[in-house]
Amino acid sequence: MRIDGAAYRTIWPTEDGGAVAIIDQTRLPHDFAVVHLTSLEDAAHAIRAMLVRGAPLIGATAAYGVALAMREDPSDDGLERACATLLATRPTAVNLRWALDRLRDHLAGVPEESRAAAAAIEAAAVADEDVAINHAIGQHGAGLIRAAAQRKGAGEPVQVLTHCNAGWLATVDWGTALAPVYAAFEQGIPLHVWVDETRPRNQGASLTAWELNRHGVPHTVIADNVGGHLMQHGKVDLCIVGTDRTTATGDVCNKIGTYLKALAAFDNGVPFYVGLPSPTIDWGMSDGLREIPIEERDGREVTHLTGLTADGRTETIKVTPDGSPVANYGFDVTPARLVTGLVTERGVCAASREGLFSLFPERR
Amino acid sequence: MRIDGAAYRTIWPTEDGGAVAIIDQTRLPHDFAVVHLTSLEDAAHAIRAMLVRGAPLIGATAAYGVALAMREDPSDDGLERACATLLATRPTAVNLRWALDRLRDHLAGVPEESRAAAAAIEAAAVADEDVAINHAIGQHGAGLIRAAAQRKGAGEPVQVLTHCNAGWLATVDWGTALAPVYAAFEQGIPLHVWVDETRPRNQGASLTAWELNRHGVPHTVIADNVGGHLMQHGKVDLCIVGTDRTTATGDVCNKIGTYLKALAAFDNGVPFYVGLPSPTIDWGMSDGLREIPIEERDGREVTHLTGLTADGRTETIKVTPDGSPVANYGFDVTPARLVTGLVTERGVCAASREGLFSLFPERR
Repeated sequence: MRIDGAAYRTIWPTEDGGAVAIIDQTRLPHDFAVVHLTSLEDAAHAIRAMLVRGAPLIGATAAYGVALAMREDPSDDGLERACATLLATRPTAVNLRWALDRLRDHLAGVPEESRAAAAAIEAAAVADEDVAINHAIGQHGAGLIRAAAQRKGAGEPVQVLTHCNAGWLATVDWGTALAPVYAAFEQGIPLHVWVDETRPRNQGASLTAWELNRHGVPHTVIADNVGGHLMQHGKVDLCIVGTDRTTATGDVCNKIGTYLKALAAFDNGVPFYVGLPSPTIDWGMSDGLREIPIEERDGREVTHLTGLTADGRTETIKVTPDGSPVANYGFDVTPARLVTGLVTERGVCAASREGLFSLFPERR
Repeated sequence: MRIDGAAYRTIWPTEDGGAVAIIDQTRLPHDFAVVHLTSLEDAAHAIRAMLVRGAPLIGATAAYGVALAMREDPSDDGLERACATLLATRPTAVNLRWALDRLRDHLAGVPEESRAAAAAIEAAAVADEDVAINHAIGQHGAGLIRAAAQRKGAGEPVQVLTHCNAGWLATVDWGTALAPVYAAFEQGIPLHVWVDETRPRNQGASLTAWELNRHGVPHTVIADNVGGHLMQHGKVDLCIVGTDRTTATGDVCNKIGTYLKALAAFDNGVPFYVGLPSPTIDWGMSDGLREIPIEERDGREVTHLTGLTADGRTETIKVTPDGSPVANYGFDVTPARLVTGLVTERGVCAASREGLFSLFPERR
């Protein structure tokens, strides 16, 4: 997508091929900084310290990390060490393991002297495939936004609500939930996005707002408490969110608070869509509420916030009283009955086993 | 209620009668400071600058403000000036106008030389009546918590979820939503309170957490996004919130985000109660969603947060990117169909016209 008019991905090889460039997302939204990764350790640090985040982008960064490692030590030992180092950075990230397995398998049959070049090509393929999947999600989802536009008065913007950041910053490009928004925007459909702040980590207020703003998409940041009120008053035409994991029955595990927005959408007859690349479907799961473990995260995300002071310094403040415990659940599960449709790279389907089978018959 | 073992109200005349003491709530939760009001202007400033907040406490502060003014100028002009000055501090606060009308009417027939003493007595009566109403709400609501305790295993704490601050800090004592919690706690019923942070003004994380902590009530602060997940997993036995205005049909206008928690409670079979003093019932309204105007507040409450730095300084930071607009709706309306019961000073009733008439037959 664009940053002030210039096209960017979240990760790309530098022109001279000497490094891999990323956007340091820990410094957003107040500071835009490109960082060059030149070694395995650089790539591992970028994932570990969350300079990059979002499952697809973590996978692509790991792939490029293997390519950097192969320039240092293309031996079998070097390959294993690279994969082990990268896997340890975020041990629960499914895409990370998937990307590393793919690179390891691919390079196993390649002679050592060709591994650096082969790894770079394969990493680029991982990135390109993510872009292709998200672009397809965008095209399918844009149809939903176009249909909403046709139900409204001419020129009246379609009001979209999203939660957390499933935008291009979480992927290599386009995003998942936001791919339809960008695609519709490119098609000239008038729209406006309500951006949930997404406490406690504020990925909506910091990342989604930043990327929409820089691309030029009209949007407004709201507290997470506001969406229900907006839907009661007809100010939301459709919701679209991302997902970390979707069951074969269409239950959606996404950032904490997604369920509350789905309830409000259902109560007010507002369509609630989920944008998802098919690798996030867990075909072995059928009951999201009972089967998906919910991560409890560091309470400091609730007690402390970081931002910019009036004189331009980055400062961290505590907002809760000493002595008050906090709890920090990272995700919740939205039951399929509240989901209007799943927007995948193969099309839009009902949030049900039959719906998913209709698009992925090979899983039947 | 108690602060580290010592009994407090939120407002009280000093022992020598020379001043009225309040807690400066703008400095909570990081700093506990008692401020002495000695003049009309002090009282007006305390309301205007929100050193005191919460409808009942604003009313009591205004009453004491008239008493302070009568020591300066007990003439009819002085009385009118005092009421006009105080009314202008928060022009939309219903309790403020009510308290001022009451003091003005009461003092009209009192000779000038007795007005200071009469006003002090009447202000104390306003405060005492608020305490009595809230105490009664507490006794009625404690019965609901006791019933929940009896449905649980012996000694297992009743899990209560609340939103915003309708605790003793919002009133003269006891609170409205939290009065039942304090009453049940005094009765030795084991309980634990989930405290919604309540963005954007964080009154839950700053005020509710502080007052529960200082009184010794077990509690945990959570992001506003979390309550639905907790209810899905059986971790909430009942919700109880306050209200700014309730229609004659039982629709409840309360802090933004209340509606989302009511939806989650309904979806999971969790009882959802509202604690309210009967003066907040608007007997002339029958459709909260259509009739209650929702205040839009300064966007700075969304973009900026204030808290304590690691080295103990109070600092304000910006958390949203430059260029991203924000919207800040202060309240939402929870339809009566989602409310299990209204807890008033006369007892608990259904959230309906018939329910309210059963407790307030004189309104029929």
